[in-house]
Amino acid sequence: MPKVSIKGQQMPESPIRKLVPFSEAAKQKGLKVYHLNIGQPDIKTPEAALNAVKNNIPEILEYSHSAGFESYREKLADYYQKQNVQVDSADIIITTGGSEALLFAMGSTMDAGDEIIIPEPFYANYNGFSVASGINVVPVISTIENGFALPPIADFEKLITPKTKAILICNPGNPTGYLYTEEEIQQLAELVKEHDLFLIADEVYREFTYDGDEHYSVMNVSGIEEHAIMIDSVSKRYSMCGARIGCIVSKNKAVMSAAMKFAQARLSPPTLAQIASEAALDTPQEYFDEVIKEYKDRRDTLIKGLSEIEGVKVATPKGAFYCIAKLPVDDADKFAQWLLESFEFNGETVMVAPAAGFYSSPNVGTTEIRIAYVLKKEDLIQSITILKEGIKQYNNK
Amino acid sequence: MPKVSIKGQQMPESPIRKLVPFSEAAKQKGLKVYHLNIGQPDIKTPEAALNAVKNNIPEILEYSHSAGFESYREKLADYYQKQNVQVDSADIIITTGGSEALLFAMGSTMDAGDEIIIPEPFYANYNGFSVASGINVVPVISTIENGFALPPIADFEKLITPKTKAILICNPGNPTGYLYTEEEIQQLAELVKEHDLFLIADEVYREFTYDGDEHYSVMNVSGIEEHAIMIDSVSKRYSMCGARIGCIVSKNKAVMSAAMKFAQARLSPPTLAQIASEAALDTPQEYFDEVIKEYKDRRDTLIKGLSEIEGVKVATPKGAFYCIAKLPVDDADKFAQWLLESFEFNGETVMVAPAAGFYSSPNVGTTEIRIAYVLKKEDLIQSITILKEGIKQYNNK
Repeated sequence: MPKVSIKGQQMPESPIRKLVPFSEAAKQKGLKVYHLNIGQPDIKTPEAALNAVKNNIPEILEYSHSAGFESYREKLADYYQKQNVQVDSADIIITTGGSEALLFAMGSTMDAGDEIIIPEPFYANYNGFSVASGINVVPVISTIENGFALPPIADFEKLITPKTKAILICNPGNPTGYLYTEEEIQQLAELVKEHDLFLIADEVYREFTYDGDEHYSVMNVSGIEEHAIMIDSVSKRYSMCGARIGCIVSKNKAVMSAAMKFAQARLSPPTLAQIASEAALDTPQEYFDEVIKEYKDRRDTLIKGLSEIEGVKVATPKGAFYCIAKLPVDDADKFAQWLLESFEFNGETVMVAPAAGFYSSPNVGTTEIRIAYVLKKEDLIQSITILKEGIKQYNNK
Repeated sequence: MPKVSIKGQQMPESPIRKLVPFSEAAKQKGLKVYHLNIGQPDIKTPEAALNAVKNNIPEILEYSHSAGFESYREKLADYYQKQNVQVDSADIIITTGGSEALLFAMGSTMDAGDEIIIPEPFYANYNGFSVASGINVVPVISTIENGFALPPIADFEKLITPKTKAILICNPGNPTGYLYTEEEIQQLAELVKEHDLFLIADEVYREFTYDGDEHYSVMNVSGIEEHAIMIDSVSKRYSMCGARIGCIVSKNKAVMSAAMKFAQARLSPPTLAQIASEAALDTPQEYFDEVIKEYKDRRDTLIKGLSEIEGVKVATPKGAFYCIAKLPVDDADKFAQWLLESFEFNGETVMVAPAAGFYSSPNVGTTEIRIAYVLKKEDLIQSITILKEGIKQYNNK
């Protein structure tokens, strides 16, 4: 019998999904499960986006240009320019989600056996894309003690080898919610210039900042135009995760030319979703103002609630809609499973993502969980009550 | 300055696209260009598919299950069962086009440096997916002289090494239009059993057969359940290339489990296009009857016309909507460019795909072109007239 590839065996299972059978079983038992584990927002997709699809559906659902609709790329460039990111349509290739943009970025900059340095904890699927691309993730640890700020540059330098080709950051961060400061981005810029590395920034949460802090893009740093690659997506910005539209953005012509060959091989990004995404750019500012206000409110509610649970430590997120909480339990993995399998509080429980899966180093973050604050305020408050009771009962069993 | 990857440099340019600048220039000059070069059908997408999107657009465009909608997978299994392919929904993962299904199949069965044997000429993007996956294509030549039938099994056996992990066929074939017989598929089945290889069959044109010949799927062969992987897509079946929905199908649980991890890393296939694709399964049989009749008519028109041009040799396609024609010219690449750059016939010209790009072996097929018969009959007739005149003038210059 032919065997699956080593790559296929090594592909990691998503830390968000491995508890799914237990949550399904909990629901089967009649329990209500609050999902704090996934980043699927409950915010409505802008009507402009959905109406555009309804009203402009073509008679023949044709391939688009491999780089995406020209009209969409131009409008998207305008959007970035308004955000003070100076790019034009030639610097953009539309992809099937931020996921494909990451695959294109990795494929265009790294070969089998090459290394990419990523501050951890990091978005778990970076592991999957790295295995799929045949490259090795070299983690550099950031800690809850300083809110998951950028690790010291000396820590990066210790890890650089001749195989190192890129540094990957997520800003604002999933799962940390940390927003890198301009100074931190500048430090990284100096580092990649000095060592001839690419700086790949996953900025899919770029609009989600809460305390008046401004997001500082790698595309804004002068002097690293040939190093900087931005990954973006419409998934979170317009609550249209299912569209599967993202983009890869860079001023480096050689990178874009290589990425374009990957794009041509898969023919085109999805046509219907591009219609929706292009129209989404007309979404009025009030939509975002409301969304950001809502998330800020949820964040404040969550952080306040978590802080009031004895023994819980939490880093206040400055952006995105996740936070990492350190719990007073022996093992967050076991605890998360126990919450679904053996616990209930008035017929309800919560599902959280154990954070160990967001670390590449073994035995790190084993008492931490990631919480996505994508539920409405009342549900968050109820979830915190359940979590508090869960911790108490778990430690008393 | 950091450099792009070797992979990124080696990614091939599509043979269909490299003449695009010349066709753009021809159009700029005011010429009408008949596109025989691309497989974008002019057939309308079924109304059921488009209406489903219009009428069932959700308020929040959410991620779907990574394997695709369960309802879609079940309905798709029913569709295959009616076609006498005995699979159920657990054997199917919905992908972003047949393209992604191929990437998942390669990633799940092969590691960097492994080899895949493919009868050539073959769909050019197999090269791109192989480079992206870090695997090596080993071509086995099929020839126009016997209509691109399966090369002798002995030719395959000569090429098998310890690195060989799979054989990939396209059935019916793009670019050849060849439909493998049951006997040929059985020969391949024996071969993969004997050498413990996977048999990956790209069957995206499975419904397009013209002379009462029945398509014989690799999923129908008993005894190779653990070897067979089918690639499929809605692109051509429903003329919805822009949907970007396909699937990978296999009874091999280990392969599907590996493919599922690739699927989870990229989260989900596009939601809107899945709504369209699921509804497309309700397309009445008359739609297909008309489409097949139309393509058969086009094929007959094209083959008759080409055969009447002196010195042109053509293999009659039995399926799909492509054919390879051998021309009485010194070099099909130069000729195709000349048709766009330096020729016109009453203000019109044709764009064809030089076939050399569909061969992996160097200097093979250099006088052949691929023609996609996706234009209506009158346009095909006019294209043949132009091509005939072009050959004459080209050889007299």
